[in-house]
Amino acid sequence: MSRVLALEVSDVRFPTSRELDGSDAMNPDPDYSAAYVVLRTDDGPDGHGFVFTIGRGNDVQCAAISLLAPYVVGRDVEQLCANLGGLSRELVSDSQLRWLGPEKGVMHMAVGAVINAAWDLAAKRAGLPVWRLLASLSPEEIVDLVDFRYLTDALTREEALAILRAAEPGRARRLAELEADGYPGYTTSPGWLGYDDAKLARLATEAVADGFDLIKLKVGASVEDDVRRLRVARETVGPDVRIAIDANQRWSVDEAVPWLRRLREFSPWWIEEPTSPDDILGHAAIRAGAAPIRVATGEHVQNRVIFKQLLQAGAVDVVQIDATRVGGVNENVAILLLAAKFGVPVCPHAGGVGLCELVQHLSMFDFVAVSGSLEGRAIEYVDHLHEHFVTPVRIERGRYRVPVDPGSGAEMHADSRRRFAYPDGEVWRAEG
Amino acid sequence: MSRVLALEVSDVRFPTSRELDGSDAMNPDPDYSAAYVVLRTDDGPDGHGFVFTIGRGNDVQCAAISLLAPYVVGRDVEQLCANLGGLSRELVSDSQLRWLGPEKGVMHMAVGAVINAAWDLAAKRAGLPVWRLLASLSPEEIVDLVDFRYLTDALTREEALAILRAAEPGRARRLAELEADGYPGYTTSPGWLGYDDAKLARLATEAVADGFDLIKLKVGASVEDDVRRLRVARETVGPDVRIAIDANQRWSVDEAVPWLRRLREFSPWWIEEPTSPDDILGHAAIRAGAAPIRVATGEHVQNRVIFKQLLQAGAVDVVQIDATRVGGVNENVAILLLAAKFGVPVCPHAGGVGLCELVQHLSMFDFVAVSGSLEGRAIEYVDHLHEHFVTPVRIERGRYRVPVDPGSGAEMHADSRRRFAYPDGEVWRAEG
Repeated sequence: MSRVLALEVSDVRFPTSRELDGSDAMNPDPDYSAAYVVLRTDDGPDGHGFVFTIGRGNDVQCAAISLLAPYVVGRDVEQLCANLGGLSRELVSDSQLRWLGPEKGVMHMAVGAVINAAWDLAAKRAGLPVWRLLASLSPEEIVDLVDFRYLTDALTREEALAILRAAEPGRARRLAELEADGYPGYTTSPGWLGYDDAKLARLATEAVADGFDLIKLKVGASVEDDVRRLRVARETVGPDVRIAIDANQRWSVDEAVPWLRRLREFSPWWIEEPTSPDDILGHAAIRAGAAPIRVATGEHVQNRVIFKQLLQAGAVDVVQIDATRVGGVNENVAILLLAAKFGVPVCPHAGGVGLCELVQHLSMFDFVAVSGSLEGRAIEYVDHLHEHFVTPVRIERGRYRVPVDPGSGAEMHADSRRRFAYPDGEVWRAEG
Repeated sequence: MSRVLALEVSDVRFPTSRELDGSDAMNPDPDYSAAYVVLRTDDGPDGHGFVFTIGRGNDVQCAAISLLAPYVVGRDVEQLCANLGGLSRELVSDSQLRWLGPEKGVMHMAVGAVINAAWDLAAKRAGLPVWRLLASLSPEEIVDLVDFRYLTDALTREEALAILRAAEPGRARRLAELEADGYPGYTTSPGWLGYDDAKLARLATEAVADGFDLIKLKVGASVEDDVRRLRVARETVGPDVRIAIDANQRWSVDEAVPWLRRLREFSPWWIEEPTSPDDILGHAAIRAGAAPIRVATGEHVQNRVIFKQLLQAGAVDVVQIDATRVGGVNENVAILLLAAKFGVPVCPHAGGVGLCELVQHLSMFDFVAVSGSLEGRAIEYVDHLHEHFVTPVRIERGRYRVPVDPGSGAEMHADSRRRFAYPDGEVWRAEG
């Protein structure tokens, strides 16, 4: 019998603000970071997970994760892995910790990291990548993962079961299709605000040459700059490559609409995060005012309750899940089911530290067992920091190859965790 | 010239879970706590503030507050106090820390505590209680306190100015009225779920004898129990005393409606927190389905963006601000202005640790300078832990007397902070 011996937390930060990679209208100087957690066991594999942050506060995020140790330390690993729905409900229901959210921000992301680490552990023990483990579950087992509290006015357990059962017959075919062709990706690499026009054009050309047919540009600091940069991008890639744009929450609702109308001539594929991620009614108003530009959001959406409403209100054309913002795999399964119910495609947020490695599992599970569709779907890809991961993503001709190694993809090389440990790792000591 | 020497944080917890005071359907065993902050100055008064939590995680909340030290330590006190709108915008705009929310949960409450401490400092230096300081500002100075980002589709700076200017002529008269008669309160003391029927009836009788004409009962764990307890309460107080009920987020939307229809015969004055505080559309649906029961929420509403939408959607009849959940006095001023724009009364959440002491200033300011009305308004009152505060609230005949001492009311006795310090104060050492 194997037990969880310890919940170990480490503060890992990459000094990315030295370059302007990752710069956008709201985040000028991020140091991409991970509040990293290991569920250490006394026998067999450990479970790895993390919260992605952009620097300051990563220590507080680590402290929040540590608070959850009593829920896992000492527990039987097999029982823990056999009831990940139960673990999720326990962690979300700690009444004292719940007060710090509820189900949002630092405390909720901490819950997500621990749940994701438990999934990594369960998948490694099963000898499967997480997406394959998820896709091996029955519809009943899948709905048992989901906390339907606050969802049932939009999605009941029975409705979720019906969605999953409808997708069952095609599972094997879609799984084979994924293994053969991979899952579509799109790239943000050309579009950071800190890049000049020449670099933008060069990187856009490279992206298309690499096989991507969807690229993304940051916008929102200056409308004149946005017009110029979108023109450069459109002239570079031609009419057939899709260009999404991303304002990173820069605008109020009434600023967004006229700004977007200025950009419509370049046929943006979607506008991402036009305003506060909390503003359901605002996204609906922007969608109406800026049509036909499609509206996307989600990387900062705090939980399933906000996603539910974005869908109920017809506020979004694209749901952008994030692997470490909400309560882990379980809450993301709920969000995939909600999106399927409303017929809205999911195009995950990625990049950061290890978000590509994690979120690909959710999209591939979605294709095999939930939505059954690739239409209008793509996973964000940023070619950044993958070398720190034990099983980095593999991209070929703009598509994610299926992960084949057991686990969630979260495991970072021990050497990277040591060197980039904050503030005492060698990289930061050299900085100081 | 005075400077801020240090931002000092302490973890203060009261072992309230030993009693069942504060028990409700979601929070069975709270240890009422404060993540307490002092802005220490080298000359003149210090500034005090805190975040109210219910126990575990108070240390993480303290750590989040500490992250904000660079924004205040070393600064000129006079300049800081002269531009509290600027301080608020700076704290909310730290891009790395903002990632941890944005503007929600642990990090946003930390921002609120520091802003509130700066208000305490400013008011003490001015020799005024916060409500009087606020009510002495011109409409232009008041709108300068507000961050209108994400609000302008519902409330512009010009509309806020118009509301404040319309209220200007009556300020002196209403101020005199408040000083003579105080501000209405209501009490939750009889209604905790942990109390048996006899204790409920005894405390309800006492509340009415004490002058309260509005009491509140916790509901949501069992509909049969709720029917019985509401019957006991209604028979005890008669038809003329209002009874509000509070479900503390226990229900999904489709559970709430039939449950509330069972309780309609007792004419509840409002249903508070029927579901997730994030569920704007859910509150609107419950309001429609359970009419004529009025809907109230807010103590867990994370920021002005959610309040804006609750008002835009016609989802609430009562806005319940909380002094330490959002980004401090500044964001609460924004919320008071939003409520005034939509003509919805504000009845603050209080109780906890020191929430009565803090929030009374906001309601009194609202009456003098914003809404100009007491109609349908009352501040929650719980007779609990006031003895730990240097300037505790004063209640007479069910009404809050105006605070007269300089400051925000946040300052806790140094001796209380020492004795209840967690985990090393004498109270907790005795526990261990």
